[in-house]
Amino acid sequence: MNCKQTIYPFTALVGQERMQEALILNVINPALGGVLIRGEKGTAKSTAVRALADLFSSLEVVDLPISATEDQVVGSLNMEQAIKTGEKTFEPGLLAKAHKQMLYIDEINLLDDHLVDVLLDAAAMGVNTVEREGISHSHPAEFVLVGTMNPEEGDLRPQLLDRFALSVEVRGEQNPQARVEVVKRRLAFERDPESFARQYQDAQQSLRENILYAKSIVRDVTAADDLLETAAKISIKLEVDGHRADLMMIKTALTLAAFAGRTSAVKSDLSRAAALVLPHRLRRTPFEDYKQDWSDVEQLIYEECAV
Amino acid sequence: MNCKQTIYPFTALVGQERMQEALILNVINPALGGVLIRGEKGTAKSTAVRALADLFSSLEVVDLPISATEDQVVGSLNMEQAIKTGEKTFEPGLLAKAHKQMLYIDEINLLDDHLVDVLLDAAAMGVNTVEREGISHSHPAEFVLVGTMNPEEGDLRPQLLDRFALSVEVRGEQNPQARVEVVKRRLAFERDPESFARQYQDAQQSLRENILYAKSIVRDVTAADDLLETAAKISIKLEVDGHRADLMMIKTALTLAAFAGRTSAVKSDLSRAAALVLPHRLRRTPFEDYKQDWSDVEQLIYEECAV
Amino acid sequence: MNCKQTIYPFTALVGQERMQEALILNVINPALGGVLIRGEKGTAKSTAVRALADLFSSLEVVDLPISATEDQVVGSLNMEQAIKTGEKTFEPGLLAKAHKQMLYIDEINLLDDHLVDVLLDAAAMGVNTVEREGISHSHPAEFVLVGTMNPEEGDLRPQLLDRFALSVEVRGEQNPQARVEVVKRRLAFERDPESFARQYQDAQQSLRENILYAKSIVRDVTAADDLLETAAKISIKLEVDGHRADLMMIKTALTLAAFAGRTSAVKSDLSRAAALVLPHRLRRTPFEDYKQDWSDVEQLIYEECAV
Amino acid sequence: MNCKQTIYPFTALVGQERMQEALILNVINPALGGVLIRGEKGTAKSTAVRALADLFSSLEVVDLPISATEDQVVGSLNMEQAIKTGEKTFEPGLLAKAHKQMLYIDEINLLDDHLVDVLLDAAAMGVNTVEREGISHSHPAEFVLVGTMNPEEGDLRPQLLDRFALSVEVRGEQNPQARVEVVKRRLAFERDPESFARQYQDAQQSLRENILYAKSIVRDVTAADDLLETAAKISIKLEVDGHRADLMMIKTALTLAAFAGRTSAVKSDLSRAAALVLPHRLRRTPFEDYKQDWSDVEQLIYEECAV
Amino acid sequence: MNCKQTIYPFTALVGQERMQEALILNVINPALGGVLIRGEKGTAKSTAVRALADLFSSLEVVDLPISATEDQVVGSLNMEQAIKTGEKTFEPGLLAKAHKQMLYIDEINLLDDHLVDVLLDAAAMGVNTVEREGISHSHPAEFVLVGTMNPEEGDLRPQLLDRFALSVEVRGEQNPQARVEVVKRRLAFERDPESFARQYQDAQQSLRENILYAKSIVRDVTAADDLLETAAKISIKLEVDGHRADLMMIKTALTLAAFAGRTSAVKSDLSRAAALVLPHRLRRTPFEDYKQDWSDVEQLIYEECAV
Amino acid sequence: MNCKQTIYPFTALVGQERMQEALILNVINPALGGVLIRGEKGTAKSTAVRALADLFSSLEVVDLPISATEDQVVGSLNMEQAIKTGEKTFEPGLLAKAHKQMLYIDEINLLDDHLVDVLLDAAAMGVNTVEREGISHSHPAEFVLVGTMNPEEGDLRPQLLDRFALSVEVRGEQNPQARVEVVKRRLAFERDPESFARQYQDAQQSLRENILYAKSIVRDVTAADDLLETAAKISIKLEVDGHRADLMMIKTALTLAAFAGRTSAVKSDLSRAAALVLPHRLRRTPFEDYKQDWSDVEQLIYEECAV
Repeated sequence: MNCKQTIYPFTALVGQERMQEALILNVINPALGGVLIRGEKGTAKSTAVRALADLFSSLEVVDLPISATEDQVVGSLNMEQAIKTGEKTFEPGLLAKAHKQMLYIDEINLLDDHLVDVLLDAAAMGVNTVEREGISHSHPAEFVLVGTMNPEEGDLRPQLLDRFALSVEVRGEQNPQARVEVVKRRLAFERDPESFARQYQDAQQSLRENILYAKSIVRDVTAADDLLETAAKISIKLEVDGHRADLMMIKTALTLAAFAGRTSAVKSDLSRAAALVLPHRLRRTPFEDYKQDWSDVEQLIYEECAV
Repeated sequence: MNCKQTIYPFTALVGQERMQEALILNVINPALGGVLIRGEKGTAKSTAVRALADLFSSLEVVDLPISATEDQVVGSLNMEQAIKTGEKTFEPGLLAKAHKQMLYIDEINLLDDHLVDVLLDAAAMGVNTVEREGISHSHPAEFVLVGTMNPEEGDLRPQLLDRFALSVEVRGEQNPQARVEVVKRRLAFERDPESFARQYQDAQQSLRENILYAKSIVRDVTAADDLLETAAKISIKLEVDGHRADLMMIKTALTLAAFAGRTSAVKSDLSRAAALVLPHRLRRTPFEDYKQDWSDVEQLIYEECAV
Repeated sequence: MNCKQTIYPFTALVGQERMQEALILNVINPALGGVLIRGEKGTAKSTAVRALADLFSSLEVVDLPISATEDQVVGSLNMEQAIKTGEKTFEPGLLAKAHKQMLYIDEINLLDDHLVDVLLDAAAMGVNTVEREGISHSHPAEFVLVGTMNPEEGDLRPQLLDRFALSVEVRGEQNPQARVEVVKRRLAFERDPESFARQYQDAQQSLRENILYAKSIVRDVTAADDLLETAAKISIKLEVDGHRADLMMIKTALTLAAFAGRTSAVKSDLSRAAALVLPHRLRRTPFEDYKQDWSDVEQLIYEECAV
Repeated sequence: MNCKQTIYPFTALVGQERMQEALILNVINPALGGVLIRGEKGTAKSTAVRALADLFSSLEVVDLPISATEDQVVGSLNMEQAIKTGEKTFEPGLLAKAHKQMLYIDEINLLDDHLVDVLLDAAAMGVNTVEREGISHSHPAEFVLVGTMNPEEGDLRPQLLDRFALSVEVRGEQNPQARVEVVKRRLAFERDPESFARQYQDAQQSLRENILYAKSIVRDVTAADDLLETAAKISIKLEVDGHRADLMMIKTALTLAAFAGRTSAVKSDLSRAAALVLPHRLRRTPFEDYKQDWSDVEQLIYEECAV
Repeated sequence: MNCKQTIYPFTALVGQERMQEALILNVINPALGGVLIRGEKGTAKSTAVRALADLFSSLEVVDLPISATEDQVVGSLNMEQAIKTGEKTFEPGLLAKAHKQMLYIDEINLLDDHLVDVLLDAAAMGVNTVEREGISHSHPAEFVLVGTMNPEEGDLRPQLLDRFALSVEVRGEQNPQARVEVVKRRLAFERDPESFARQYQDAQQSLRENILYAKSIVRDVTAADDLLETAAKISIKLEVDGHRADLMMIKTALTLAAFAGRTSAVKSDLSRAAALVLPHRLRRTPFEDYKQDWSDVEQLIYEECAV
Repeated sequence: MNCKQTIYPFTALVGQERMQEALILNVINPALGGVLIRGEKGTAKSTAVRALADLFSSLEVVDLPISATEDQVVGSLNMEQAIKTGEKTFEPGLLAKAHKQMLYIDEINLLDDHLVDVLLDAAAMGVNTVEREGISHSHPAEFVLVGTMNPEEGDLRPQLLDRFALSVEVRGEQNPQARVEVVKRRLAFERDPESFARQYQDAQQSLRENILYAKSIVRDVTAADDLLETAAKISIKLEVDGHRADLMMIKTALTLAAFAGRTSAVKSDLSRAAALVLPHRLRRTPFEDYKQDWSDVEQLIYEECAV
């Protein structure tokens, strides 16, 4: 059966700009390593991911269900075959399918910790390696990892949280007019998906070109030393663990500059990058609350970037 | 053995009008996505579902027991066959059987969370997809999902609750005359099912026609912008998560209008829709009580709809 | 080996009249749906059940051990056979064996909830249906379900309790003479079962005939509307869940009338029926105590029935 | 390998008279249904059981380890054979081996509850029945069930406790001379088992004859009505559950009379019987302590038996 | 590969005299039934056991890892073979291998309770019996059971503790010179094991002869009645459970006398024996502390032995 | 696919000198038995290990994932083959692969305790022995065991902690200039790994030679008696369990001397060794805090070494 469905256009989404930006940055620079979307239910998280992928004919969303086994994720080696014929046969898994694509995991906080580990390892290395009984196979696995979670249902371990480059919090619109727009567009889309999509063809094309240009220049964007020092000071003041936060802030700022069409990152890039990189890296109290108010953190970022 | 039994007539039920309405709305507009019936034991929940299905010769109730395995629900792919012959063989499950029918789950709160997830996904997409070892099969699965539960025995996760379009609370009749009527009808039915059913033939036929007409016009019913805005304001004031509540209130109001034979939804439709859509979406305190009294909520809906 | 043993005569039992009455009512009217016997150990619960069955050569007691599997209870379908030959082969279980018999479950509170559910479903429908991989088989399964339990070892879930038509509480005799009689009869029976049984032949025959006559008239017994209203008022005042209590009080009163040789139920029948139907249906506090004293309940029943 | 060992003589045991008496009573009257020995470690419980069995060449001690499976205990039916040849093949278990013997279970409180149930059922009926897939087999299983336990490691469920006819508490000797005797005899036995055993040959023969004579008259011993009434009054005053305590006190008194060579039980028999029958049947508080001091109970028994 | 390693000489050990004595006593008199070594990590427990075994070419240390299965410990019967050929085939386990040897269990407190039970049973009887489906096999299994444990990681059940004849507590040396000696000897051994071992050849030979002589006379050592009475009084005053403590104190005293070359045990033997037999048998409070201070116990032993 | 990647140079690491030293000492003297690295996330623990191994073409890092089975770690014996042909076939595991290499375990605190035990045993003996059904195989397994853990996610059992020779705590740099350097080097490395590596060729070669020289002299380094006595006094004052701490401090001091090119260890070597050997061996309170502040410990070491 062919169940091909028309996808809701990315540019028809109302609100949720930060989530949209984080997703776009990962398409521009897949080396960022994905994004964790945290927020309440009913906020179009899944719709946004599929809509972005639909912008590019070559970008596919690979779904990783939380019930997936390790074999289904990393692939498996046919040992019987290997022993009989001397040739290893690799049965590719979801990571192979996700190469150069988006790997989407809904409710990632309910996924087995070990699998999250495997995923983040592969995402960090860009390579997936399977070993069994002395035989090993590796293949490239460069993908944009997008995880969503509802923090009310339990959080990720700090160790894993830290390995997500970016995170965003989403919540429902609080403006009635905007909400009416959300419902109107949804009803219009449900009644006639094709004609609805046609209304957004131009906006979609414009965003597509913007992203493609950013991809072409992102490796050439540079950052001055004082920008690096600002990032370091922010990390030290906030007592974030290790050095990954600094590195991620700089890499995200470079990507933001590319999205803006610039080849040099500036403090406003760093300031916006900090808002995507730091929220899930703040220190927590023993009872799992964050030790800092985010508004204090924003003030600190503002002051450091203003110098 | 043939154990065909006469079914209690839907129109012979006493009381429980809201549950009956919620079931009828889903028959008129299966895209609503089902209903969750919560309430005390001995309130004819199962009887009502089977009685409604019995109105239409083409409507079947598919029972999903809480002990069902994932394979029994979504169906299974015969991998051995697929590998040998190159042709995939799909063994259909309950979701295939439930296509264009009612899928009934008693004590859904005791069902494995993962299975509820699978069900609500299929219900939302209207498609059931099974994937195994790189082979996949999908088939349409549009059904009215009806779940019942006794809240004394534990609730559903908020994430899952939210995905039910409608919910109703049921309790026993408090009027002695009505109760006498319940027992009299039941005793009469148990003594002679056929002659009892004959007494309700006309009422059954009339309801059947009413529903079929509503089905024929429901896609043409419209809602004015201020109705959408009223729905949005209610959601914002009640701080319900995301935008699904707004959308569901509007879609339910449209279906109620169709049931009333109208092609335009009005505020009284929205008011009744709100009572079916909101109860299970209210915010809860950390100890799982709802933060608002339902009477306050009704007052708020009344005020918003009165404007 | 033939281990046929002489059974202790039902009419030789001392005390425990309410338990004996509840068992007899279910033999007269198997549609009542069984009885739950709750009480302290050493009170001849099992002896009474076997003794009643021994009154009728055609009545068998089928034991369902708490270690029984679902297959042993409902029977199983030989799938291999079905696939090879196209003919389904059904291996009957305990429910098939229990058709038109007594199904006895000692310590039913320790039985897996799901199995209790299956049993009460079959008891309610009078039909047992087994489904597997799209093949199904059903057979009639009308039986008197008798469960015993010691409440000190944990109770049944309220959902399940409610589905037992009748319940009785048993405790040891408090009168020394009666206890001496219990021990004397037991010792006499253990020394020479056959000659002991001969002493009760006449009483056994008389009870047997009484029950058979009641069975022949029970479908013709009627109840006036004010009796139904009295039952409804009792249920409302006691806030029992749903309508099952009313229906069960009336059906039990009808059966009591038949046992008394009458074709019309009267208030004294309802009063005795209430004492068998209500005890396990009273509301409980969060700490699982019943909210009402039984003596207050008896007073209320007395007043309602006296009007 | 032949590991036949010389057994410590029963009459060489020092102290623990009540445990010895309880064991002897069960050999005289196996219908008593066994004894539960509760007490501290290192008190020769196992030695006493094996020593008593060694008195009679035809009495065997069958050990039931707490790791035994149900099949090992009750035996198993070879279904494959039954289906192929139409003849059932029964593989006997420990209960078959224990017929007319002693069944010994060390640390019975650590045995699976279900197995204890099975054992006590078989002990009560004198018959073991195995059923599987519609085929059943039964064989006589009359045995003396001896269980030991250390109450510090958890108790039996009250339901199970009640079904043991007799219980005794054991603790170490408190008299130094007696303890010296215990150690001297043990050292002497360990150095040269055969010559040690020879010293007790006469005492062993005398006890053996005493027991055999009691066995030959026990069915003819009688008890007057006032003895039965005294037993009933004791049970009522102590609020023990059900009627089993009365029956067991009388049966034990009859057996004690036989051991004394009498054919009529007297109050002193009842008084000693009460001390073996009642201790594990007293009511407990919610925190599992017994509600009565044993010394108060003894006073009550003394008063009732003195009347 | 041959990984034969030079073993650290027993006589080169510094400190830990009580542990060494307890091990030696068990080699002299294997009927003592083993020793439990409790103490902090890093105290050469394992080294001492292996070093003692290395004294005698015929003494082997059999390691029982805590992950061992019951089959690996007791051996297994090849049932298939037995049924086919009528001949039972016994696959010996660790207990067979340990016959006349030392059985060493590191962290015995982490071993499955049931396995500890099996081991202590075998140790007490000197015989290992395996039974399966009516077939049984037994073989001699006389071994010195040595268990070690760190009490910080959980204790053995009292029932099991009691069955160890002897126990010793070990802790690190508190004298700096002694510690320097420990390190110097260890470094010397690690640098050149063979030449280090040569330095202790004479001491090793002398200890070997001493032990062999004690073994030859231990069965002839006697104890006077007043020594037995002293042991009994100590046990009564300390309220230890049962009689095993008395018996073990006497047997250990007899073995200590043999090690001293005497054929009569004296009070100083008993006093030293008490220190090995009593520590793990003292009564505990509900919170698992011992009720007596060991210094008070030593004072009591001193007084009783001084009389 | 060939995924050979350029490794970040060891000498390009910024900060983390103590972790680097501990790793180097183990390469010089593999008999030390490994190092446990504890610390916050994002501190280049894994990078450092791989970078050090990359210094020597013959040194490989063998990764042991926490999901590894015992068979995968120790290897397995092909029993079927052994029985059929009489020849044992050993399938080597990770320990065989790790011989003369580094065995790296990330998040070792999440590894099954039993496996950690197996690893530390093998590390201590330098031999891996596999036994199954009476057949055994052993092979040399001398490796540098490097474990990392984040103490926030649970600690190792004290028993296991003690068996790691050395431990270091790592945390992120607190100096902004140093952090800028970290990020700059990382960005430079990510942009062009090969040219980055070329800048550190000389430093790498110099370190390589330094280590190789130390390896050649480490067995000849000596320590005077007063150094041993100082180590003993430190252990006694800190109440560390057993004698392993003394031995490890001396062996580490000898290796530090070798790294400094000396053949005699001095007090400054001991002082630095103490800082690597003692931190994880300090006594803890019942709530798992260490009883001593590390600054007090440093003061004590300083005083002892100053004498």
